[in-house]
Amino acid sequence: MLALGIDPGTATTGYGLVREMEGAPAVVTYGVILTPAGAPMAERLLAIYREIQRLIALHHPDTGAVEKLFFQRNVSTAMTVGQARGVALLAMAEAGLSIGEYNPRDVKLAVAGYGAADKPQMQGMVRAILNLPEAPRPDDAADALAVAICHLHSARLRALTDE
Amino acid sequence: MLALGIDPGTATTGYGLVREMEGAPAVVTYGVILTPAGAPMAERLLAIYREIQRLIALHHPDTGAVEKLFFQRNVSTAMTVGQARGVALLAMAEAGLSIGEYNPRDVKLAVAGYGAADKPQMQGMVRAILNLPEAPRPDDAADALAVAICHLHSARLRALTDE
Repeated sequence: MLALGIDPGTATTGYGLVREMEGAPAVVTYGVILTPAGAPMAERLLAIYREIQRLIALHHPDTGAVEKLFFQRNVSTAMTVGQARGVALLAMAEAGLSIGEYNPRDVKLAVAGYGAADKPQMQGMVRAILNLPEAPRPDDAADALAVAICHLHSARLRALTDE
Repeated sequence: MLALGIDPGTATTGYGLVREMEGAPAVVTYGVILTPAGAPMAERLLAIYREIQRLIALHHPDTGAVEKLFFQRNVSTAMTVGQARGVALLAMAEAGLSIGEYNPRDVKLAVAGYGAADKPQMQGMVRAILNLPEAPRPDDAADALAVAICHLHSARLRALTDE
């Protein structure tokens, strides 16, 4: 099973593709989609959408995952992040991917075993779980990998319960 | 010039198509896109996106308009509205429409001549401007028509200044 994790934002959207290989997650690729600050919002959303479409066409993930983001600091940020999140969910739904949405706490629990893990702890755990030579950078890419790991973990547990 | 106004929301998205005819706006169509409350967010966004694509393919608007929505009551609502707004902007950008974004105050000024106009005043003015037999319903459709009227008004003023 190949999972696409997305950490949406209009300036920087992180992505991470993680494959479940014999019960262990292995990274396929990760990175960020950057959009120019001066560009109109609709153009930035279009760039994010097309890049996610390109990733899906290239790698054919089976499933997608994003964080639920109810903990934004302010209303204006929430609106902006919501727009990027909307086009990310749309690209995944259009491609027929099943989609998982997880609270930040769920992601921290699944990755670090600790619902209040901080960013360095999370990055260290993502590095260890994926057996990477160093912690993935930037933060948005690490966050995207974390939500993909959480999603695979959740799918593995669900599969156990169904048996 | 044909303008598509959108009032985005995940449950109800209002739309209104208004044509500038010899200096006066005339309604082409208006209505709402409804999505089932129980459906997953990604499916609801996909339904909104496809319906806006269908409207654009059917009517070939030249330009689109949405309200800037920085006055949402809470962060969770802002995030949700942001997602719907994101896919609406995306559908318009993909179709190559120029896009205008207006503060609620701008829309009220353009439609009612009064930046603090209330809903009944706005609906009455939309009805009068578009020469409709009764006030457009529901609210989201009336709001979408109002932002389309505002956008055409703004384009008319810009055209005057450019001459």
